[in-house]
Amino acid sequence: MPSNERDAAADVGLLAPVWAGSAAAAATGDAAFLRAMLDAEAALTRALATAGLAPPAAARAVTEAAAGLAGADPRELALRARADGNPVIPLVAVLTAAVAERDPAAAEYVHRGATSQDIWDTALMLVTARALEPVLADLGRAERALAGLAAAHRDTPMPGRTLTQHAVPTTFGLKAAGWLTLVRAAAARLSAVRAALPVQLGGAGGTLAAFHAYAGPDAAADLGPRLLAAYAAETGLAEPVLPWHTLRTPIADLAGALAFTAGALGKLAADVLVLSRTEIGEVSEGAGGGSSAMPQKANPVASVLIAAAARQVPALAATLYGSLAAEDERPPGAWHAEWQPLREALRLVGGAAEAAAGLAEGLRVHPERMRENLGLTRGLIVSERIAAALTPLLGRERARAVVRDAVRAVRDGADLRSALRAGPAAAALPDEPLHDLTDPARYLGSAGPLVDRALRARRNHDDD
Amino acid sequence: MPSNERDAAADVGLLAPVWAGSAAAAATGDAAFLRAMLDAEAALTRALATAGLAPPAAARAVTEAAAGLAGADPRELALRARADGNPVIPLVAVLTAAVAERDPAAAEYVHRGATSQDIWDTALMLVTARALEPVLADLGRAERALAGLAAAHRDTPMPGRTLTQHAVPTTFGLKAAGWLTLVRAAAARLSAVRAALPVQLGGAGGTLAAFHAYAGPDAAADLGPRLLAAYAAETGLAEPVLPWHTLRTPIADLAGALAFTAGALGKLAADVLVLSRTEIGEVSEGAGGGSSAMPQKANPVASVLIAAAARQVPALAATLYGSLAAEDERPPGAWHAEWQPLREALRLVGGAAEAAAGLAEGLRVHPERMRENLGLTRGLIVSERIAAALTPLLGRERARAVVRDAVRAVRDGADLRSALRAGPAAAALPDEPLHDLTDPARYLGSAGPLVDRALRARRNHDDD
Amino acid sequence: MPSNERDAAADVGLLAPVWAGSAAAAATGDAAFLRAMLDAEAALTRALATAGLAPPAAARAVTEAAAGLAGADPRELALRARADGNPVIPLVAVLTAAVAERDPAAAEYVHRGATSQDIWDTALMLVTARALEPVLADLGRAERALAGLAAAHRDTPMPGRTLTQHAVPTTFGLKAAGWLTLVRAAAARLSAVRAALPVQLGGAGGTLAAFHAYAGPDAAADLGPRLLAAYAAETGLAEPVLPWHTLRTPIADLAGALAFTAGALGKLAADVLVLSRTEIGEVSEGAGGGSSAMPQKANPVASVLIAAAARQVPALAATLYGSLAAEDERPPGAWHAEWQPLREALRLVGGAAEAAAGLAEGLRVHPERMRENLGLTRGLIVSERIAAALTPLLGRERARAVVRDAVRAVRDGADLRSALRAGPAAAALPDEPLHDLTDPARYLGSAGPLVDRALRARRNHDDD
Amino acid sequence: MPSNERDAAADVGLLAPVWAGSAAAAATGDAAFLRAMLDAEAALTRALATAGLAPPAAARAVTEAAAGLAGADPRELALRARADGNPVIPLVAVLTAAVAERDPAAAEYVHRGATSQDIWDTALMLVTARALEPVLADLGRAERALAGLAAAHRDTPMPGRTLTQHAVPTTFGLKAAGWLTLVRAAAARLSAVRAALPVQLGGAGGTLAAFHAYAGPDAAADLGPRLLAAYAAETGLAEPVLPWHTLRTPIADLAGALAFTAGALGKLAADVLVLSRTEIGEVSEGAGGGSSAMPQKANPVASVLIAAAARQVPALAATLYGSLAAEDERPPGAWHAEWQPLREALRLVGGAAEAAAGLAEGLRVHPERMRENLGLTRGLIVSERIAAALTPLLGRERARAVVRDAVRAVRDGADLRSALRAGPAAAALPDEPLHDLTDPARYLGSAGPLVDRALRARRNHDDD
Repeated sequence: MPSNERDAAADVGLLAPVWAGSAAAAATGDAAFLRAMLDAEAALTRALATAGLAPPAAARAVTEAAAGLAGADPRELALRARADGNPVIPLVAVLTAAVAERDPAAAEYVHRGATSQDIWDTALMLVTARALEPVLADLGRAERALAGLAAAHRDTPMPGRTLTQHAVPTTFGLKAAGWLTLVRAAAARLSAVRAALPVQLGGAGGTLAAFHAYAGPDAAADLGPRLLAAYAAETGLAEPVLPWHTLRTPIADLAGALAFTAGALGKLAADVLVLSRTEIGEVSEGAGGGSSAMPQKANPVASVLIAAAARQVPALAATLYGSLAAEDERPPGAWHAEWQPLREALRLVGGAAEAAAGLAEGLRVHPERMRENLGLTRGLIVSERIAAALTPLLGRERARAVVRDAVRAVRDGADLRSALRAGPAAAALPDEPLHDLTDPARYLGSAGPLVDRALRARRNHDDD
Repeated sequence: MPSNERDAAADVGLLAPVWAGSAAAAATGDAAFLRAMLDAEAALTRALATAGLAPPAAARAVTEAAAGLAGADPRELALRARADGNPVIPLVAVLTAAVAERDPAAAEYVHRGATSQDIWDTALMLVTARALEPVLADLGRAERALAGLAAAHRDTPMPGRTLTQHAVPTTFGLKAAGWLTLVRAAAARLSAVRAALPVQLGGAGGTLAAFHAYAGPDAAADLGPRLLAAYAAETGLAEPVLPWHTLRTPIADLAGALAFTAGALGKLAADVLVLSRTEIGEVSEGAGGGSSAMPQKANPVASVLIAAAARQVPALAATLYGSLAAEDERPPGAWHAEWQPLREALRLVGGAAEAAAGLAEGLRVHPERMRENLGLTRGLIVSERIAAALTPLLGRERARAVVRDAVRAVRDGADLRSALRAGPAAAALPDEPLHDLTDPARYLGSAGPLVDRALRARRNHDDD
Repeated sequence: MPSNERDAAADVGLLAPVWAGSAAAAATGDAAFLRAMLDAEAALTRALATAGLAPPAAARAVTEAAAGLAGADPRELALRARADGNPVIPLVAVLTAAVAERDPAAAEYVHRGATSQDIWDTALMLVTARALEPVLADLGRAERALAGLAAAHRDTPMPGRTLTQHAVPTTFGLKAAGWLTLVRAAAARLSAVRAALPVQLGGAGGTLAAFHAYAGPDAAADLGPRLLAAYAAETGLAEPVLPWHTLRTPIADLAGALAFTAGALGKLAADVLVLSRTEIGEVSEGAGGGSSAMPQKANPVASVLIAAAARQVPALAATLYGSLAAEDERPPGAWHAEWQPLREALRLVGGAAEAAAGLAEGLRVHPERMRENLGLTRGLIVSERIAAALTPLLGRERARAVVRDAVRAVRDGADLRSALRAGPAAAALPDEPLHDLTDPARYLGSAGPLVDRALRARRNHDDD
Repeated sequence: MPSNERDAAADVGLLAPVWAGSAAAAATGDAAFLRAMLDAEAALTRALATAGLAPPAAARAVTEAAAGLAGADPRELALRARADGNPVIPLVAVLTAAVAERDPAAAEYVHRGATSQDIWDTALMLVTARALEPVLADLGRAERALAGLAAAHRDTPMPGRTLTQHAVPTTFGLKAAGWLTLVRAAAARLSAVRAALPVQLGGAGGTLAAFHAYAGPDAAADLGPRLLAAYAAETGLAEPVLPWHTLRTPIADLAGALAFTAGALGKLAADVLVLSRTEIGEVSEGAGGGSSAMPQKANPVASVLIAAAARQVPALAATLYGSLAAEDERPPGAWHAEWQPLREALRLVGGAAEAAAGLAEGLRVHPERMRENLGLTRGLIVSERIAAALTPLLGRERARAVVRDAVRAVRDGADLRSALRAGPAAAALPDEPLHDLTDPARYLGSAGPLVDRALRARRNHDDD
């Protein structure tokens, strides 16, 4: 129960079942950002100490004070952030006071030389790095489960569907191999981005000038680069070539990798939603959701939630890409417009990855329904093959005419084999080959080798 | 301080200084959604009672139990919502138990005949209606302040700027009148949408069939429409022609009105940001924000935050418009994808409106800087006028040539008046008219009457 | 065959089958824009003549010269537009030369007092007004056809589907009534926007100052407003309160109405795509598309193309809404970013409306497949009703238990009626009512009255 | 002049000055797509011949016939594409007829085994590969010019601006180094994507089954993979692991790289637009654009057009990312929704890259205006430094108080140096150091070394 009015605006995921309670949500909450800002401030003072710009004792005092505040309530900061436009300014005041209590002499080394954006961007990168851990783990789980499905159903025939209509047969293994390939691509993109998440340090104008000012006239010429390296080491983040206050490569790359991942998982969900339809029934989720009104329903809830996430992330990514065009040394709006969309994209992808892992692990496959559905068009699903088989025997034009006639007969109620037997194809294709030719399970082309190929690509990569 | 781990993912606005602490944020928090769902359930049982489908005592019991739960913690519901994909299902269980404690016989009337989406959509409309109240009030404040600025500066000349360059003079009054006109258009759109926010009631498939089932074989043929009307009356929302589970007109209209408002306020912010630049200095925010590094700075923080909001809402609106294409009687994803984007759009617009009201009320205007800036091009800002004045005297081609020469002279350091005096224009335009012709403050065209027109349009509307 | 290299970049709709060859595409081509710019220039000179700022002969000469250029090749202008950023500047040169050939004295009245944006925005509004004519006509066609389907199938039962699963029965009439309601809402929004499309006239800085300069010192104080009115009259567009160079209400309103329409048609397409699936087969497009590989296929091509359009318009609308935040008196980018997205949105909506009209008129409905599909769950589709019927007889808890047991039996292969007959429900519900209760066609709730209501709403509106 | 009505809808770039006439536009026109489809068909028959599935003579005949049609008019195909939803189906008919004229026996090998999407996607990749050539060349030009600017202005001081206000000094070299870094990142992303553009080949359902059917029962088990390899070799595109009809990694990666590039160039444009403002004047475009109304104007047209492009691409990318979630073996809408957005994104980026190269090469830099502007705040731009210098001398609190007083004095009209001299700082900081400390040109921190670092990163990369 909210203890007071201020809680009224607190969000706990009620509108986001896809990420409520997920590890990614916990890693990206306001409290996590607060901790990450404190980590960024503490690491900065330690980096200053490494560079000789702060006494080691100050670095210790700031680190300890920051740790002591890690559980602080972010509400107050959130409200105070309105005045200056970001939460670092009030945080510095709080942290400075806490340091002063421990060690008055250390207080002046808090945030020394830095600008708000140095801390905020570094915190954003720390939060992102932490949030991507469970995301990548869940993608790994999904990969393993999908690889298992692809191998197990390498030769399980099912209808291939194009523009909603049965086209030619395919296999469930090839479908699963496709999902696997996309999930692997997503994980590769997220991993690459994660490895490159940079620390931010540039001071007010991106020149690191204040650090020089504090260092005094004898500062080393390479003070800036040395500080960048020390800060990167203290945070575990990468060292950028330049301060990136308005060179937003890391944010844009995240946007792309997150939109990619959401879409990759969205493909899996889109397929499961189709295949779960009451009329199709070729797969079902291991744990379907219930309904407030209908006792019989087992809804493909994981897929629904993943699909909902996939619909939201591209637009958030568009906002993030839009912020690349950021004027000056700190832009009036483009930077601030990144925070919520990036966090929400991280959460949506995190929740979707967790749901997808569970979905892939629990998916129930119904080969018998696939087989039934393959028969729904009474053979038309292999009409392409008949045309191919007859062409060398009858010539292209006559072969096509035979198939056209057979299609018409099937539409009037016949099945394809009988229709062909009744026409000129009968002479060309005697009974036995006709039986094989019209068997959807024997018209799978390279489906099997393609599955092998996708699984091999995964194994080879894992050897690396 | 977070009391436990579950709080880690709670958001209080730390990443959204534009709406942290705003009335719109409080009106749209998870707790507000919980209250609105309870209101929707209670109103439903009352509507059932009105229609003779529930005893009045049950309606009272549900209403009281719902009120008793209004302060409940939404965390538990948020987590339980994952299983079935929406928070109504667990809420019904909680509410039913609470009703049963008061009046066991009333418990079975909870949520009777409804589907989760009936309650959630109705709650969403209630939350929206409540959140739009402060938004419209803030837009009203902004309107009044902007009307005041337009009137006060009806004749205050300043440089008009096109493609970043001085073009011809305009007035600050006309600029403020433009802002006013946009803010009025935004308020009109939001008001129209707000008046039409509909209740949702259709049951599992949109046919209201379960209500007929509970009513028994003697149910009135018009039971459905009567229930819709009763539910609308109990909630204060509008009565839709049809249940709108997958006819998302209200959501799409909200998307449009919110994106419009964000953009309208974004125009105000964009102009203030330009005019506040150190080099321009024609306006400044009443209460500028500070910097963590630079003691001298007074940043146009309100404008920055509004601009950040304006960058985010169009993409959220795109997601909402995308959800119009919702298949079936409840779509697997499109509906769920609406919740967070709509809430975030409401908050961003709410925060931006609050900031804009303060911005407009506190804006400091510097006519002397405008005057100085008008002189920066040493007269070129009125070169269009000189060409117009000379054309009837010298013919178009010679007039243009004279102006071209003068422009060249000014680029070399002269001012326009002297340059003209030195050339053939001198004969055509003697000294006195030249003085007037080159005075930017006398080249304002219809700026004044246009301001009057915009103010009149506002007054006329207010008479309605 | 392209006559030369310059044709290489010419687009004729190869990548846009949804609008290739449509009336909306023809109305929005580059040639149509050229004509509209010429119309805007001619109308301006006529408006000047009305206001006494140009001789009637000049107005005639410009009008005639403009008409003479209406078929000119836009290629040259397109290339010359790069230098200054818009095509009006080179157009003015071409038009001035053409006027000079007819009447040298008239040449100087071409474009007098105007700025490029006055002409371009006016042309954009003219093009839009013209393009919306066929769009509204096609929406009218779709409305009529959908109303016919709703009436004809008022009582045709079919499965209602939620989250991809059969939920409860509905009717095809109610589905069609929903589509109708959305299409009507779309037409209403587009009509309202169309009626308000404003002329643009403000001169270089939005003050109409150059017109005053040309009018000389004795110009009427209300010269600006009078010119605005005259220009509106000459173009047939609405008169704005203020020049709207950076008050982009008309563009934003168009964005919203177009995104709405795309989504409304997208809902129709999404449903037809589901219902056309091989396994569902409840509707089929009158004229399905073929396949390059599979002779048997009849693809729901109209729906596919509409769906593709619906996926593109929201993002284009987002860009347009984003351009509201346009700084200064002409923004460096936001204005130019409107042109292609607005044109493409008009075309996508125009093509989708044309396709939707054909789709609705030709849709083939298969009630027998609907009936078959209603039986697929062996009665579970009415389990909600059984629970409702048993509740008053057995109490809620026992009723639920009975239904749960029956659901389980059905999953094991029974049909619902037999399962109920074998259990305690048999005593409570004797055979005859059980037969009725389990008939999906008798569990349609208010579907019929809701269809009537939607049709009535349409008729009432048409009486206006 | 349009020869007939069909031309009315032809676009030549009138609405897109950013790309009209650019190499990217020519490489992506409808005619280029037609050529690419023909190339894809010809390469397919050659690949079939390599795999023994077609006689070499047929491959030659198809290749020649395709070459003969390369200049065909795409209009007819565009119109005929509406019936089936894509232009490949009518193209196959045209090509087959053309082949039959040359070699009747070869006709049946046209498009053998393929599906429309195989050809279209391959054509799309070919067009993309060709269009990216000039884009990468233009980015290379921009890189060189920006590296030159960074080196030349390594030590040219200018005001650093944050949230529109002067913050601390920076250098123009650092700004140019930032632009360079972004452009390099964009080129790297586009190059990586370009190298991976894959051929498409899967047949109707992605199993390559029809190729097996044509190969007959003795087909090699690895026929599919061998064909994929042969087709890749014939087209010069990469070989994918799986057919990617609904595994849209290449499209999504393009979306990201194009949005990145648009944003990277947008940052350059955004800065130039600010720095070009009449009041700032620190840079100007080499060839500014004119105005239809104001003879004196020199607009930063290249930047305006780049900025307009940067506003449009993120939304197009969002649509493309959204198409990842594509159901089945060919989705009903998501695929078709990719074509126009991808082409338009290529063009916008291509035009922006061309404009940016010209912009960077021609940019005029005005160090004297930068110097003047550094003085605008009468020293406040270095107040951060003064605080840093005084802190060790006076203690943090007193140092801050001194600076606060000085800031106040400067706001009242003093300059910072005199204000400091009048206060307690005078004792702490004697005249000479005060002179240096308040010189903005001596407060550049690591700007120089950072420029060196960015230039070195570029050189090292070029060594690769």
